[in-house]
Amino acid sequence: MVEDKILELLKRRDSGHVSGEELSEVFNVSRTSIWKHIEKLRSEGYDIAAAPHLGYRLVSIPDRLTGIELKWGLDTKIIGKKIYSYKEASSTNDIAYGMAVSGEREGAVVVAEYQTSGRGRLGRKWVSPGGKGAYFSIILRPDILPREISAITLLVSLAVAKAVRGITGLPAFIKWPNDILINGKKVCGILTELNGETDKVNFIITGIGININTKVELLPEGASSLAAEKGVAVDRLELVKAILRNIDKYYKIFNGGDTAAIIKEYKKLSAVLDRQVQINYHNKLMSGHVVDVDKEGALILRLDSGFNERILAGDVTMLR
Amino acid sequence: MVEDKILELLKRRDSGHVSGEELSEVFNVSRTSIWKHIEKLRSEGYDIAAAPHLGYRLVSIPDRLTGIELKWGLDTKIIGKKIYSYKEASSTNDIAYGMAVSGEREGAVVVAEYQTSGRGRLGRKWVSPGGKGAYFSIILRPDILPREISAITLLVSLAVAKAVRGITGLPAFIKWPNDILINGKKVCGILTELNGETDKVNFIITGIGININTKVELLPEGASSLAAEKGVAVDRLELVKAILRNIDKYYKIFNGGDTAAIIKEYKKLSAVLDRQVQINYHNKLMSGHVVDVDKEGALILRLDSGFNERILAGDVTMLR
Repeated sequence: MVEDKILELLKRRDSGHVSGEELSEVFNVSRTSIWKHIEKLRSEGYDIAAAPHLGYRLVSIPDRLTGIELKWGLDTKIIGKKIYSYKEASSTNDIAYGMAVSGEREGAVVVAEYQTSGRGRLGRKWVSPGGKGAYFSIILRPDILPREISAITLLVSLAVAKAVRGITGLPAFIKWPNDILINGKKVCGILTELNGETDKVNFIITGIGININTKVELLPEGASSLAAEKGVAVDRLELVKAILRNIDKYYKIFNGGDTAAIIKEYKKLSAVLDRQVQINYHNKLMSGHVVDVDKEGALILRLDSGFNERILAGDVTMLR
Repeated sequence: MVEDKILELLKRRDSGHVSGEELSEVFNVSRTSIWKHIEKLRSEGYDIAAAPHLGYRLVSIPDRLTGIELKWGLDTKIIGKKIYSYKEASSTNDIAYGMAVSGEREGAVVVAEYQTSGRGRLGRKWVSPGGKGAYFSIILRPDILPREISAITLLVSLAVAKAVRGITGLPAFIKWPNDILINGKKVCGILTELNGETDKVNFIITGIGININTKVELLPEGASSLAAEKGVAVDRLELVKAILRNIDKYYKIFNGGDTAAIIKEYKKLSAVLDRQVQINYHNKLMSGHVVDVDKEGALILRLDSGFNERILAGDVTMLR
């Protein structure tokens, strides 16, 4: 698209101007045509100033998770080479799943500003109010067995927690397996789905829903947003880009076989390690002290009886 | 459908006759209408004799895997309560998968006489010539984690091997994980696919392709059919029904938590236990002596070095 290319030229010129004449020559179209493209960009939220003799100058970009902005300077190897951006989507996981079935390559990202049917773990709803959060799903095609999917879940939550810390400075921790907590409140949920056969994963869709500048009143009880915890708005584009970069980095480590390195970093940010917790799985309760997260991502719980129990799945509640 | 009900009445009358008058009264339609339904059944391959004064008599049923015939006397709890029968299908796994996504309940069976795009494990093709084999897929919704899917694979292969033995008397064995062999030749393949999330299986589709009376010339090298091994044709309907009954039985045991009982029976029919084998996984070869199939369905291989290796996936070749 010509608009994308004009935008790129304006961005590369830093704070300087690009004349209508130059643009018209570069793209080999009339100056009136250039003006129409500039108007189109303005209608999408780009603030582009025009000064006589000097030309056009990019003043600011819109607060929107578009493919072009997310890709700008992303510099990843796999994640986000393709980005499909929607203002509104039913569920980005559903869209990505459909794309994966149709053969879309790994690393493709589906992002939406608003989800009408956002889904959480175990068939739960994921509240996805518009405009201030980020809801995105990534297609992965690791050459693994279905049993190894837990590592992907941990890797993605680690990537998110690190990105939140890097961009906002907030003390983000991970509640096993993959909720991101700040000050004990949930700010992000991750839903990792798979399609495979007994001894092969065909593809994995990992979906991330993160409350960035979302109004807390719109969120369920116990949830919060990054802005609410920090007290100021957070740059959504930079945060999502940081998450994509981290996933790219940890996914590379995972594919290289060094899951141990990921688990080691994950444990440093664990909200449950060395804590007394209660686990609810299939309506069976179990409580104990979390002593480890093992190499397969299972939680090792020391029961009151002194025996260790290996927990593969369940909902964790932290006890005082 | 009236035809189904007429058929049921004819079947229940054993070798006796049912008069047109009786049928006309039972279904409250004219005798001409009854005659038309009988003609319809005849066109589907049912041999129905008509004698003056005595009425209609069912002489034989067609050699076709129809829902009505498969359900006849099936007497299962879960498997086959619904059967969708096709003369031709792209892939019964694909059809069942789509039905499962749309909410179809567990136990539903999709069966075809012929597949245009039959699929085997790891993206391989499954040759599905028409008319003499059976290709069917079952929707299961066990409350398990993705890592537990191996048990389903073993359970289904056990069910098939047992049914083949019961109906044909042939010495069917299971090549781990789930090929059925007779005299060292493959007669059946099983493809188990899943859809789920990190800690929940949404559904499993287990697809069975079995060469029953299939001409060996139509099959790939190394494959055979039950009829070729036995020397006479095998009753396809009875075989498929026996498989469905066995899956129903073992699935109940699995849901009851007694995977150990299934593994125990599975091991009795294992073609690889106590044999020298070579395993190929991701183009890495490993050879050794199979000493066990563990409680999670993994193969325990004693390497030449004396160490045991736990094999979760791979292709097995038996060595002399």
